[in-house]
Amino acid sequence: MVDYQKDNTKKKVQAIDYNSLCPVRNVLDRFGDKWSILVIVILGSTEKLRFNELQKCIGDISQKMLTITLRKLETDDLVKRKIYPVVPPMVEYSITERGLTLLPLIENLTEWAQSNMQGINAAREKFEVRQ
Amino acid sequence: MVDYQKDNTKKKVQAIDYNSLCPVRNVLDRFGDKWSILVIVILGSTEKLRFNELQKCIGDISQKMLTITLRKLETDDLVKRKIYPVVPPMVEYSITERGLTLLPLIENLTEWAQSNMQGINAAREKFEVRQ
Repeated sequence: MVDYQKDNTKKKVQAIDYNSLCPVRNVLDRFGDKWSILVIVILGSTEKLRFNELQKCIGDISQKMLTITLRKLETDDLVKRKIYPVVPPMVEYSITERGLTLLPLIENLTEWAQSNMQGINAAREKFEVRQ
Repeated sequence: MVDYQKDNTKKKVQAIDYNSLCPVRNVLDRFGDKWSILVIVILGSTEKLRFNELQKCIGDISQKMLTITLRKLETDDLVKRKIYPVVPPMVEYSITERGLTLLPLIENLTEWAQSNMQGINAAREKFEVRQ
């Protein structure tokens, strides 16, 4: 039984190129969270925003989480951070060229989410009833 | 200064339809994590897998996390769980029709990640040097 299972797994696993998933996991880990996606969508729909403006747009994100998210996106060349040498220093965030290439893919996901929302909600209710 | 900033934010915010982002956030929250995406990609590339086979495929996921991930995906009608009435009970997981409609979007993200991986890694190194 155990041996059969092992062989079976091996056969199925070979059909998939798992190595090709590694860089993807690494990249998805970085912008696959809802805050990163939201920041990219918001900055993609406007020219530039200051930290407070961005926080106001998102609504329920903490200052700390927005700081972490922006830093991550800046590190990955998806968001640009421009500091103006004024007192107090003024910082503006905008989307990068690389970020812009990601935008249509996120928009596709957004559309999928919108057209599947009702069905998913119905599935969730059905699932809860079954439990 | 504060008043100007408030007005400015308001003007920019009005240009974006934030209400349309709510269902999206709700849906992305559910499959936007790397484990869900991996499970969908793996089940999308094979007919069906048992829990242990799936765990072996992913490699570094804990039993608890895989259980949570599968339950979430099942609740959202993205993954199907079939129980065979044998002793001990046999359970198999497969992708649903809804899950299949999500697959090409994830594949687009995968392709994007693959073609941007090198650039993002270079950006990360540059960012670290700058700090």
